[in-house]
Amino acid sequence: MKKGRITIPTDESFVEGTKKIAALWGADAVRDCDGTELPKNVKKLAEKVYNTYFIVRGDNEWAEKHPEETHRTFLMSARNLAEGDTLQINPMQGYFALQIQPDWENTAYWEVYDRTSGERHADWEWNEKSGRVLVKNARPMHEYTVNFMAKVVWHPVQIYNYLTNNWTCEKQKMYDPAFPHTALYIKRHMEEWCCEHPETDVVRFTTFLYQFMLVFNEKGKEKYVDWFGYGLSTSPAMLEAFAKEYGYALCSEDFVRAGNYNSPFRNPDKKFRDWTDFVQRKVSGTVRELVDIVHFHGKEAMMFLGDDWIGAEPYGKHFKDMDLDAVVGSVGGGVTVRMLSEIPHVKYREGRLLPYFFPDTFFAGNEENAVAELNKNWMTARRALLRKPLDRLGFGGYLSLAAKFPQFVARAGEICEEFRTIAETAGKAKPYCGLTVAVLNAWGSLRSWQSHMVAHELWYQQIYSYQGILEALSGLAVNVQFLSFDDVLQKGIEKDIDVIINVGDGGTAYSGGEYWADEKLVEKLRAWVREGHGFLGVGEPTAYAKEGRYFRLADVLGVDKELGFTLGEDKYNIEKQAHFITADVKGEIDYGEGMKNVYALDGAQVLDITFSDRFRRSVNVGEVKLAANDYGKGRGVYIAGLPYSAQNARLLYRAMFWAAHKEEAMFTMFSSDPDTECSYYPETGMCAVVNNGSEKKATVLTDGKGNRTELALQGGELIWRKVER
Amino acid sequence: MKKGRITIPTDESFVEGTKKIAALWGADAVRDCDGTELPKNVKKLAEKVYNTYFIVRGDNEWAEKHPEETHRTFLMSARNLAEGDTLQINPMQGYFALQIQPDWENTAYWEVYDRTSGERHADWEWNEKSGRVLVKNARPMHEYTVNFMAKVVWHPVQIYNYLTNNWTCEKQKMYDPAFPHTALYIKRHMEEWCCEHPETDVVRFTTFLYQFMLVFNEKGKEKYVDWFGYGLSTSPAMLEAFAKEYGYALCSEDFVRAGNYNSPFRNPDKKFRDWTDFVQRKVSGTVRELVDIVHFHGKEAMMFLGDDWIGAEPYGKHFKDMDLDAVVGSVGGGVTVRMLSEIPHVKYREGRLLPYFFPDTFFAGNEENAVAELNKNWMTARRALLRKPLDRLGFGGYLSLAAKFPQFVARAGEICEEFRTIAETAGKAKPYCGLTVAVLNAWGSLRSWQSHMVAHELWYQQIYSYQGILEALSGLAVNVQFLSFDDVLQKGIEKDIDVIINVGDGGTAYSGGEYWADEKLVEKLRAWVREGHGFLGVGEPTAYAKEGRYFRLADVLGVDKELGFTLGEDKYNIEKQAHFITADVKGEIDYGEGMKNVYALDGAQVLDITFSDRFRRSVNVGEVKLAANDYGKGRGVYIAGLPYSAQNARLLYRAMFWAAHKEEAMFTMFSSDPDTECSYYPETGMCAVVNNGSEKKATVLTDGKGNRTELALQGGELIWRKVER
Repeated sequence: MKKGRITIPTDESFVEGTKKIAALWGADAVRDCDGTELPKNVKKLAEKVYNTYFIVRGDNEWAEKHPEETHRTFLMSARNLAEGDTLQINPMQGYFALQIQPDWENTAYWEVYDRTSGERHADWEWNEKSGRVLVKNARPMHEYTVNFMAKVVWHPVQIYNYLTNNWTCEKQKMYDPAFPHTALYIKRHMEEWCCEHPETDVVRFTTFLYQFMLVFNEKGKEKYVDWFGYGLSTSPAMLEAFAKEYGYALCSEDFVRAGNYNSPFRNPDKKFRDWTDFVQRKVSGTVRELVDIVHFHGKEAMMFLGDDWIGAEPYGKHFKDMDLDAVVGSVGGGVTVRMLSEIPHVKYREGRLLPYFFPDTFFAGNEENAVAELNKNWMTARRALLRKPLDRLGFGGYLSLAAKFPQFVARAGEICEEFRTIAETAGKAKPYCGLTVAVLNAWGSLRSWQSHMVAHELWYQQIYSYQGILEALSGLAVNVQFLSFDDVLQKGIEKDIDVIINVGDGGTAYSGGEYWADEKLVEKLRAWVREGHGFLGVGEPTAYAKEGRYFRLADVLGVDKELGFTLGEDKYNIEKQAHFITADVKGEIDYGEGMKNVYALDGAQVLDITFSDRFRRSVNVGEVKLAANDYGKGRGVYIAGLPYSAQNARLLYRAMFWAAHKEEAMFTMFSSDPDTECSYYPETGMCAVVNNGSEKKATVLTDGKGNRTELALQGGELIWRKVER
Repeated sequence: MKKGRITIPTDESFVEGTKKIAALWGADAVRDCDGTELPKNVKKLAEKVYNTYFIVRGDNEWAEKHPEETHRTFLMSARNLAEGDTLQINPMQGYFALQIQPDWENTAYWEVYDRTSGERHADWEWNEKSGRVLVKNARPMHEYTVNFMAKVVWHPVQIYNYLTNNWTCEKQKMYDPAFPHTALYIKRHMEEWCCEHPETDVVRFTTFLYQFMLVFNEKGKEKYVDWFGYGLSTSPAMLEAFAKEYGYALCSEDFVRAGNYNSPFRNPDKKFRDWTDFVQRKVSGTVRELVDIVHFHGKEAMMFLGDDWIGAEPYGKHFKDMDLDAVVGSVGGGVTVRMLSEIPHVKYREGRLLPYFFPDTFFAGNEENAVAELNKNWMTARRALLRKPLDRLGFGGYLSLAAKFPQFVARAGEICEEFRTIAETAGKAKPYCGLTVAVLNAWGSLRSWQSHMVAHELWYQQIYSYQGILEALSGLAVNVQFLSFDDVLQKGIEKDIDVIINVGDGGTAYSGGEYWADEKLVEKLRAWVREGHGFLGVGEPTAYAKEGRYFRLADVLGVDKELGFTLGEDKYNIEKQAHFITADVKGEIDYGEGMKNVYALDGAQVLDITFSDRFRRSVNVGEVKLAANDYGKGRGVYIAGLPYSAQNARLLYRAMFWAAHKEEAMFTMFSSDPDTECSYYPETGMCAVVNNGSEKKATVLTDGKGNRTELALQGGELIWRKVER
């Protein structure tokens, strides 16, 4: 058994057990977790010791000394209906008083809005004693809200752990390094901490400066969550520094947005882009000073991409300025692997596998489920690791809990070993990619592998049909880029891109909404496709109602969505056709939430269409779910939605090669069974063939030169083959 | 057996058969049909003789003498992509040359549009010889269309019959009475015709002046249909007269609308309203002159509400000016019964039952289906007749075909008899109504009982979930009004209205689209509901994205639709509750196409919510299908969609009484089984109880005063009861 590339949690009460498991899994590093302490003599347990570090919480004494330097957020009150010409609003209604306190000292930042007319309302006053805002000269039957600045007096992720895991430790307050005292304090503290922790090799920054947006309701339950939310970065210190630097001030509504809080589903405007750039520079600058201290003490600095990561966007312009050594994050599947494994400007990237060793999974009798969760996590992650591996894997939680499940421990050991093989093979040689594919949305490369997320890795009914595209891409033999509309408008489309994918609901930043009003964007994409490229739309791609069409590139996609205004137009193109794209499909295709009311234009090829049982199958009925369309020398493909599954990944793979007019290239290295996939590394001549399913599969590996190899793979198996060419 | 109120078709080859069936059904009138001739001595067959009459077709000699006076329409060419800076467009591409000819004499009316930018394009020329339009100075990668004026050289409904029923008669051309020669001709022809048809009692105007929009494609199949379309009324004579009278000219795009052709699903703008008003006045004026001639000859004038009815809208301001005696139309169910039976300013209204006696239904071996279609038609129509009866029923087609189906003949006879009882009872006494309900949309009373229709009576996947509301209303014990947004804005809401219903897809004229931007509308409705009224929304009611909400009256309805921008907001209101509204529901409620992504606001009562099998049932998942909400002294109800069924009609009935806070009133006369309904006529003390289902039902009739009557009804049965009060 080999050793290395594995991090395991430990704590002072589980030293001997740690040694055993470290040996079994080949772990070379140990870590503590939020809520545990490292054992003494931890150095003897592994080559490397990670220690969690919190910049902006953990020292309540400091927090209490400088309550004015706590974090702030702009929140919108509940909507209150004016019945007469005045009304009282309690901003705290629906908020958690242990987390949030109205900042009565900073009411200069507060605003009142008429949410019926959309106008800012000037005539109001506040009363700190009653905790109420009095709106005067209101218009009856209009709804009013107060945008108020609030102090954040308990760290949101700690609240979550507190309430979820029944913690009883002290409630950690917060302090924002944008304020002068805390700015000095955090450096001093870092210095002292490094001196006090000689055993630490890696400072694992569990928090940087700003937590993602996470707000609780009056019952202490989650009320609002946005993993990308910059909402907790808006202290007066930050706002003033911004105004000074940018020459204009932001107001509460620039953050509140009528309750949409600059959701990543909104197209970002210039103000928000300015703010995020500003925060990124502030965070990078501040963190850099701490990293320099860490480095001075001979330690490495590792960022946890999870909680207080706002402003430290790994694909942002200022990320490199932090001079980090490493990044670690949770692995939810292929998408999060790629999100982590492609992060630039660090020496290594670590992924923490699921399940977390917490009592919610590791309770007596639940071993089978724990193993199943581990296998599922591994099977989706592995596809992505074969394309672009992480450097390390880790685990989190209480190792003593995992140790009670021997099958789990054994399976984890196998996975660690398989991971090392992948990391060492795929880490050294680039895998063959038949195509270069770009995902086009408002965010582009800044949010590489991060589209459609709300709460980190959580499954939402509205997004899984689109996230499936990314999950499929994470393990397919194609290069993947992320392109923004601004990129296309300003720089055009790079030569090497074969296929552009636009995926999402109409009006969102992922589909593009208002961007599609711009005829320059439409022109560029049409011209590019006609030259011989592929455009693949999923859901409501290019949606922007104009001039009788809803999909602006309906002509490219070969489909449009019926909004009711063209019901009078007869739709005859309803015959399903066999096609290269659907050649491997067995049974029904799973479109997830699908899309309603999409119909094919004349000339498009309908590859799948569903008919309601209510209707006689005839003209004007049926909803097109999959279509292909020739457009000049190029091609368009439409898919209603595509949750991740082996079959859907294969369908997407074929759709991209077809769209790019490169069907032949798909067979350069191809494993016939759709449950299997192969990754080929030309530099070393190695090829990994995996079975992503749980059942035994027979597959034929072809190499595009007439060589066929018949293979049989057990469920979940990975086979390495040397390819003779 | 009684006699009267029934019209049957006849023709010269079926005189004896006509006599027999007339006796069996109690028919007192005979008619010819398009394509048949009345027998000689027809007067002996029945008390009244109807004769079809065509104003604007049937005399090809005249049409050929004045080809310049044919009807015109504005059509949009196919979308053509500019690859360079010029392109050729063939306007006729996709059109049927036997119906449509480009009007090269009137290219002054033609326009070219850039459908990518939305701009009118000035630089183009035409070539009649090549049949092409040359667009110059085009912008590459923009799509261009030609709006061209076309001559209509074959009557659209005749094309339909020709192609559907394999007619071989002469192709009928058209002539528009807006032109001077035809204006004189049609009066002369009417006069002559009346003189030549002394046997005719009723002139059945199968066409007035303008056919609804019906355009065929290059294969002779239907390409575009809009039963409300004014598109065939746009001859130069009409356009010039309009410009003179209104002081401004309309252009082609005012009719073409980027291919949407002023679909009734669009909110009408002032130009279109001006045009429809103009056409209505023109049609009324012209038809009145013919009706005067008819009356002078001692005959009655009857309008067929079906084909060339454009400009003769029965609920329009100018309808009364035609001085018609009667209207006849096809009965597709309860909605079309009410559409006909409530038409004002005529002496009587006749409904033509289905099936039509055509070979597509009346072929050997299909008797059972023919009877089933008749029964289904009757069962839905009867509910509406009990609320507001027609004066007469009729049949159409070839009576000789029906005569071959003895069971059909027998069943039709029973229906004729049941109809006479209804017409005589419900025609004399107003039925009890527990509520007054108004359907609110952009069209209001002008399009009473006509919302959501595309092709007359045809079933579209996008509309049946909304039309179900009207179909249910047509037979429920409530007064039904139709209210426009302009009515509410200009006149307010009339005192007697208890419940307002807004039903349709967002952005359409039925939901309201841009109307909801108007805060005055929002204010008025909120105030009105708070006073103690009910607001019921179906589908995407009050939809207009603004200030963080999609449903402008989300606060009233208790629900909103997730567009993606508030995915970060946790939705906890997912527990289904028992309720007055759902008290009679058995099994699953059928919401038709339903509505996705609707969630309940805090405080609303979730009455039904669906969870996908893919998700663990928890916060943030589930789609609300039915909700109830208290709002001040009033109430809101949301329904995702509601196709017509007995159960859904009952659900709607309960929802309306609940919304109006008048639950008690529902029991004033109530039949407990949801498959049954009752209509009570207080003036006569009679009560009709019907079983709308096909199975035997036991029901309890209660009168709100403690009296209970147990009844058993056979499938489809109607029982008359005298009520003691």
